[in-house]
Amino acid sequence: MKVGRRETFNSAHRLFHPDWSDEKNLEVFGKCSNPNYHGHNYVLETWVEGPIDPVTGFVIDLKLLKNLIRTEVTDKFDHRNLNLDIDEFKDLNPTAENIAKVAWELISVKLPTQMKLTVRLWETENNIVEYSGK
Amino acid sequence: MKVGRRETFNSAHRLFHPDWSDEKNLEVFGKCSNPNYHGHNYVLETWVEGPIDPVTGFVIDLKLLKNLIRTEVTDKFDHRNLNLDIDEFKDLNPTAENIAKVAWELISVKLPTQMKLTVRLWETENNIVEYSGK
Amino acid sequence: MKVGRRETFNSAHRLFHPDWSDEKNLEVFGKCSNPNYHGHNYVLETWVEGPIDPVTGFVIDLKLLKNLIRTEVTDKFDHRNLNLDIDEFKDLNPTAENIAKVAWELISVKLPTQMKLTVRLWETENNIVEYSGK
Amino acid sequence: MKVGRRETFNSAHRLFHPDWSDEKNLEVFGKCSNPNYHGHNYVLETWVEGPIDPVTGFVIDLKLLKNLIRTEVTDKFDHRNLNLDIDEFKDLNPTAENIAKVAWELISVKLPTQMKLTVRLWETENNIVEYSGK
Amino acid sequence: MKVGRRETFNSAHRLFHPDWSDEKNLEVFGKCSNPNYHGHNYVLETWVEGPIDPVTGFVIDLKLLKNLIRTEVTDKFDHRNLNLDIDEFKDLNPTAENIAKVAWELISVKLPTQMKLTVRLWETENNIVEYSGK
Amino acid sequence: MKVGRRETFNSAHRLFHPDWSDEKNLEVFGKCSNPNYHGHNYVLETWVEGPIDPVTGFVIDLKLLKNLIRTEVTDKFDHRNLNLDIDEFKDLNPTAENIAKVAWELISVKLPTQMKLTVRLWETENNIVEYSGK
Repeated sequence: MKVGRRETFNSAHRLFHPDWSDEKNLEVFGKCSNPNYHGHNYVLETWVEGPIDPVTGFVIDLKLLKNLIRTEVTDKFDHRNLNLDIDEFKDLNPTAENIAKVAWELISVKLPTQMKLTVRLWETENNIVEYSGK
Repeated sequence: MKVGRRETFNSAHRLFHPDWSDEKNLEVFGKCSNPNYHGHNYVLETWVEGPIDPVTGFVIDLKLLKNLIRTEVTDKFDHRNLNLDIDEFKDLNPTAENIAKVAWELISVKLPTQMKLTVRLWETENNIVEYSGK
Repeated sequence: MKVGRRETFNSAHRLFHPDWSDEKNLEVFGKCSNPNYHGHNYVLETWVEGPIDPVTGFVIDLKLLKNLIRTEVTDKFDHRNLNLDIDEFKDLNPTAENIAKVAWELISVKLPTQMKLTVRLWETENNIVEYSGK
Repeated sequence: MKVGRRETFNSAHRLFHPDWSDEKNLEVFGKCSNPNYHGHNYVLETWVEGPIDPVTGFVIDLKLLKNLIRTEVTDKFDHRNLNLDIDEFKDLNPTAENIAKVAWELISVKLPTQMKLTVRLWETENNIVEYSGK
Repeated sequence: MKVGRRETFNSAHRLFHPDWSDEKNLEVFGKCSNPNYHGHNYVLETWVEGPIDPVTGFVIDLKLLKNLIRTEVTDKFDHRNLNLDIDEFKDLNPTAENIAKVAWELISVKLPTQMKLTVRLWETENNIVEYSGK
Repeated sequence: MKVGRRETFNSAHRLFHPDWSDEKNLEVFGKCSNPNYHGHNYVLETWVEGPIDPVTGFVIDLKLLKNLIRTEVTDKFDHRNLNLDIDEFKDLNPTAENIAKVAWELISVKLPTQMKLTVRLWETENNIVEYSGK
């Protein structure tokens, strides 16, 4: 049984490689490399897999999962600049892939070890990534 | 090839454990344990996996799948109180997990045995569960 | 300039007229008159019309509007039985029309008088009502 | 007859008043005043009202309206920092209200004068503004 | 008080003027003039305005409105070719504007005369029209 | 890590078997066999699975994936009649299943061989298919 919770956060970011020239960054990352940043309403769907607890009927209490997602990820990232304000992206390009990987790592260490975690991140309504760990 | 069909039903329910006090139920299930019930617009996405029939181009005729979902699940649950009106929840807490499991069991027994079934249930736009059987 | 805020609440209700027989209620209200209630994920869009404040650039601070909607309506109605738990529906049939009217009345008395209020309520994704006062 | 076209753009912004201290800006604008910016996936719905042309059956060719919206607004704002990169917000707080007003002004001057214009802007799925001119 | 109902239909159509050459039709209507037709999932939102009936709490019974929309419009248009199968478009270009106008006319004649009707039609998620009668 | 891109196309089609009578086609395919065609707004979600490139932070540049989907599938199918205008469906019934299979084949041959491809196709908001190859 899998249980999913949808949360959102609104952040600024830019994509670039610090060793590359502006021209090279523009060539590879296009308008996403605009030096003054742009931003997104990110949607983060967090899925946990495990057995149903026969007493509660829950895999995990969704209030707990909601609070965990907010504490570990969305409250930290929301209304922030991912490149400048978030430690994890100081040396890591905040692509949707890397944001999903960081979110997965921040949440998975707080979950009971037997629970399998998958995160799905919408950067726009057309661009989506999904990560389930190594 | 997987084929999915989306149906909806609107039901009242409450979460509680019959052996627990009101205080304990409130502590575990929060506002979901309100004794006078609350309700949801449930969305049920039912997925069937199998080969494409070379004559029709169908895995399963979606009209048949639609009718099966409605007859076995959504016509029974729609505009009902899950706790009081539905036999399956007389002794089973109607969490999203248990509703998905019951829906899976009601539909899977009516499908050809070689077809793999997955159900995905949205309780709200933010709370989702998915079940594929044992 | 109009400003809108979307909030949600999940409630149980039933439609019926207390002076009518069960048969008459079933005839008029159909499955919505089920005596054990059913429920919905209601979506409430609240619109306020007024001039832009030249200092803040706001018509109304959406944090204030959000808090007002939650305090006056959605925190009261959420995870409740509208017929049994909410005073306004003790003697008023909780149709979508009447819920929208009650929400409009609860919110409008708390707004500055020069601001025009409209509420739009989705009972399901297919059934919607809109009310702007008499 | 009204005709609407939906377009999107993704931008960074921050809300603040240049004459106010950081503390005052934080008090009024909350997390929206974060100095390093945040961002949104804006949705811009542009509505034009006029008679149906009896020859084409169009109020306005939606390809023309689409191109007008993109040339005048969304191509300029997309993947930009509204505060730093867009002239109109050099001295104007980029609230949803002011973005809608600017979009309305940029588009309306390019439309035939007899056509009435309304713009509706979603900053998030919960925060919306609508502007129809003076 | 306004009450809205959302229904859908899936139809083929093409846009063209019978007196024009293929080249002229292609110039004006672009790919929408493809001689072999294309198609859409149309969404029709039908709004009725009137007072709340104090006995039922309804403006109009949504079951009646749903049946009226289906009988007069969506059952006729669904899984049809608008140009070839629907009388109203034999000599009328089936633009979104004209489809909305025809739907309005078919529904409004069946409504009580004191009720004001508005129809909103989505041809795609980005292209919308709205019509409230002359 | 999986990366998904959503694109749309609007096409006419009909379902039928060329060796069957009209009556038999109507019996099996219902209103989908209307000889004059009907149509849909198809939504195609294309997912690619592979490792994150440590230099760019991408699994695949979504601009490349978007262009690949458009060149190979959606630009070809959009505003076309699938039965009459698209070679792949000259002798293949354009069910959602077969459209997904054809889209998978057209896109997968253009991807690096180590990348796993899945396509998900919505024919309507309620009917969905998913295909991952053999």
